[in-house]
Amino acid sequence: MSLRDKRVSLAHGGGGKAMRDLIDEIFTGVFEPDSMEDQARLSADALRDPGARLAFTTDSFVVTPVEFPGGDIGKLAVCGTVNDLAVGGGVPRWLSAAFIIEEGTDVDLLRRIVATMKVEADKAGVRIVTGDTKVVDRGSADKVFVTTTGIGIIPPGRDIAAVHIRPGDVAIVNGVLGDHGACILGARGDLALSSALESDCAGLGHLMEAALAAAPNLRAARDCTRGGLASALNEIAEAAGVSVEIDEEALPLRDEVKGTCEILGLDPLYLANEGRLVLFVPEDEAEAALAAMRGVDTGAGAVIIGRAGDGPAGQVTMRTLFGGSRIVDMLVGEQLPRIC
Amino acid sequence: MSLRDKRVSLAHGGGGKAMRDLIDEIFTGVFEPDSMEDQARLSADALRDPGARLAFTTDSFVVTPVEFPGGDIGKLAVCGTVNDLAVGGGVPRWLSAAFIIEEGTDVDLLRRIVATMKVEADKAGVRIVTGDTKVVDRGSADKVFVTTTGIGIIPPGRDIAAVHIRPGDVAIVNGVLGDHGACILGARGDLALSSALESDCAGLGHLMEAALAAAPNLRAARDCTRGGLASALNEIAEAAGVSVEIDEEALPLRDEVKGTCEILGLDPLYLANEGRLVLFVPEDEAEAALAAMRGVDTGAGAVIIGRAGDGPAGQVTMRTLFGGSRIVDMLVGEQLPRIC
Repeated sequence: MSLRDKRVSLAHGGGGKAMRDLIDEIFTGVFEPDSMEDQARLSADALRDPGARLAFTTDSFVVTPVEFPGGDIGKLAVCGTVNDLAVGGGVPRWLSAAFIIEEGTDVDLLRRIVATMKVEADKAGVRIVTGDTKVVDRGSADKVFVTTTGIGIIPPGRDIAAVHIRPGDVAIVNGVLGDHGACILGARGDLALSSALESDCAGLGHLMEAALAAAPNLRAARDCTRGGLASALNEIAEAAGVSVEIDEEALPLRDEVKGTCEILGLDPLYLANEGRLVLFVPEDEAEAALAAMRGVDTGAGAVIIGRAGDGPAGQVTMRTLFGGSRIVDMLVGEQLPRIC
Repeated sequence: MSLRDKRVSLAHGGGGKAMRDLIDEIFTGVFEPDSMEDQARLSADALRDPGARLAFTTDSFVVTPVEFPGGDIGKLAVCGTVNDLAVGGGVPRWLSAAFIIEEGTDVDLLRRIVATMKVEADKAGVRIVTGDTKVVDRGSADKVFVTTTGIGIIPPGRDIAAVHIRPGDVAIVNGVLGDHGACILGARGDLALSSALESDCAGLGHLMEAALAAAPNLRAARDCTRGGLASALNEIAEAAGVSVEIDEEALPLRDEVKGTCEILGLDPLYLANEGRLVLFVPEDEAEAALAAMRGVDTGAGAVIIGRAGDGPAGQVTMRTLFGGSRIVDMLVGEQLPRIC
């Protein structure tokens, strides 16, 4: 069958022929699941090792605009879920993808989103094995929302969690911060910002495996998405029961991002990222972790930004450029809605 | 922490303190996942049996209105995904739940939805172990959309698929058809329909297990959701390469549903269900399957509606009340948007 429609109509969500044409041509034709049934059936061979565990995570993506420099909502949806799995030590294996599509959406936009998802899934070594589409009437959603859910496999003996962090452990980020947030701000077009900034959106599974191979006692990792590095560090510090001190001078920030933040009165520590993580390793494994991360494209800009301490549990502080120290709190309110 | 807000604001999706309060109080306080991390980590003991497989499925729910007689979007979201797993032979185990919430949505509505989800998950024996929330600006979504993704375990040796259906196999449904579709039509209030109809929404995992225990050669099953029984039978007939003939006289339909369909010119064969399935069993196991199904609350109304034949592959026909025969095609277009 061939889908001749240029725009999605409610009939494409009705459970009948039109829906099947849409699904066959736009989705399963690209993702190539093993079966046309609603359900994927997955061999569990990799789980036969005693001690292997399943990692399971889900995220809805509602970013606006759905296409932006450096990516689109499909790339975000694959990378975001891959990264959630990876920072917990899961090797990403299978994804599901559920689409809520607004009536009137360009079919070609869907094609582009799905093509990006396929590219990113291949890069990450995951397969999109099942999915769903719903169509809602015009005005009841904003073009397209994508929910991806991932299954990964945590190898036996691997246990990455914030509770393992000890005072003295070193905090590393894998590259410049805030590009995604600043890029989306620019892409909205309601600011007179012209910049060549691209989203940092990227899958971090291979980076995590490289770091783990080099630093077998890697304690914990977290992707710095909504709420930025500051929120990730606060969550980690609280869960670990340690303090964290970072060094402003060490924070990798592009001049364009700093500039955007200055103009708008934003704090780059809270800007969203979609291809950045912070991880904690024991001090004696920090150099090995850094070197290994720098050997992976998504870790080329890896730097040490601070360390865990024995100050008040849950407190994150930053040594400023002027030699002072300030508390870096959880984000209050929101800096930018629909960033991911 | 206590959430004092009565309505959801964009800050509740921002990745900061407000979001954490919302998640802690409304979601994780009820679902009680094992960890506060984005990722669930699941013991894979049940997958250690050689031959056991994972079942994996996802669905987005966009029903309007979000609350209706007999259920709400949360009940649909749990039952729908449980049923997708169950009809493929998976024993439902774990669910994720991702919420896209419109700014301004009543927090109490979320509480009710989440409470329903917990009740249905408990009934089905599944745990909601991970989730996500996104908040979009007013007018960019319609109150709340829920995407549930499920993992089930298919026991070794169990292989339920349409390709196993043979001419002569018997088709059984578990109860009256079309209640969900007719109920949603009535609940929209834009029709002068007053009826006591409730949605048939229900989890069918236990029913499937009962049928499988009684009919070990059960061939295939499908839930009759969007597109109704007609679409489910068409998909099965095509995948199986058989014809299917059903008997109009045998179709279980309430008078209210028939009446609604007559008034509106709808065909009850295409009305959506959310607690109905059709399954195929070998003729010599049909009585045992029926009896077992009738012993489960969701199968009390189980009846034989037809059988597979050796007519044209993929063709579904119905012997009408008047003794004729008509082709029951896939739904063309859509009968009712946002039914699930």
